[in-house]
Amino acid sequence: MAEEAENERRVLVAVDEGDESMYALSWCLNNLVFQNSKNTLILLYVNPPRGGYMPFETAAALDDPETHPANLYSPEITAAMERYSQEVADCVLAKAKKLCKDLQHVKVETRVEDGDPRDVICEMAEKLGAHVLVMGSHGYGLIKRTFLGSVSSHCAQNVKCPVLIVKKPKSIADAGDETYQSE
Amino acid sequence: MAEEAENERRVLVAVDEGDESMYALSWCLNNLVFQNSKNTLILLYVNPPRGGYMPFETAAALDDPETHPANLYSPEITAAMERYSQEVADCVLAKAKKLCKDLQHVKVETRVEDGDPRDVICEMAEKLGAHVLVMGSHGYGLIKRTFLGSVSSHCAQNVKCPVLIVKKPKSIADAGDETYQSE
Repeated sequence: MAEEAENERRVLVAVDEGDESMYALSWCLNNLVFQNSKNTLILLYVNPPRGGYMPFETAAALDDPETHPANLYSPEITAAMERYSQEVADCVLAKAKKLCKDLQHVKVETRVEDGDPRDVICEMAEKLGAHVLVMGSHGYGLIKRTFLGSVSSHCAQNVKCPVLIVKKPKSIADAGDETYQSE
Repeated sequence: MAEEAENERRVLVAVDEGDESMYALSWCLNNLVFQNSKNTLILLYVNPPRGGYMPFETAAALDDPETHPANLYSPEITAAMERYSQEVADCVLAKAKKLCKDLQHVKVETRVEDGDPRDVICEMAEKLGAHVLVMGSHGYGLIKRTFLGSVSSHCAQNVKCPVLIVKKPKSIADAGDETYQSE
């Protein structure tokens, strides 16, 4: 078994704006990804549709040219929204990479994809040949989840590889971010 | 981070009659529990209520002396059912321990508890101070799940510690049990 533990693994970690996904990454680094393992860590940020989070019925309207956000907003607003989305993605991934900075023998890759996080995470787990998917339990905030449903529940049910769902303990949530940072 | 990885961890693995939970245990041994870690592995088998798997409404009737299985069946049948339950528990845990036989620096404990697996697994994760809960995705069979709902989904939502849900790949399911055994 020790030999198998040394085998190459692709660990996909879904990160978002929430502290919980950073805690999940930190937990993963401390418990699943070891310095002496031939691991590739893939940090995935999913950029939700520009129209924002919405129920499936509304989301379907995005396929209609008349209701597509690109046609609802002026080019300036659309460009600003795109810039903002890119900045959020960059910020999240920079924070995630900072947590990984002490890893010496682990290759760290980043991916930014667009779409419904539920579908995209499942698709990417398959496409990237992930050996395990790691994610926070309550990604994408309360209001967003009201429309989206639980991303982690959806992925746990639909992803074929093992799924590790990490909740941020309340004590740590109360204490702030610093408690789970690796530095 | 390497130091934290060496810290003592209590890994709770819920096992049942299904091959998937044994695959989950095997995955856990290969990817989460390392020989050089100060880990305690707790193998938990939950013995469902003697009345069998049933919806919550029916299960509630167990509290009623008139409908409690102990009063529905003769003492001989009740004793035979108890013996059978114990034999199943022993068999499952023996199979699980066999998978762990090569672990040299990991303490392996076993627990048998009675009750609804959904509730018992969540309670035991809390009570035993589990650092992570590992379980198969589809425990307790198709018909049983129809009544029970998904045990893993329930636990992923309600357990406070990280939950690792492992699905047995179809290729392995087709190939039979031997492919995931450690021997």
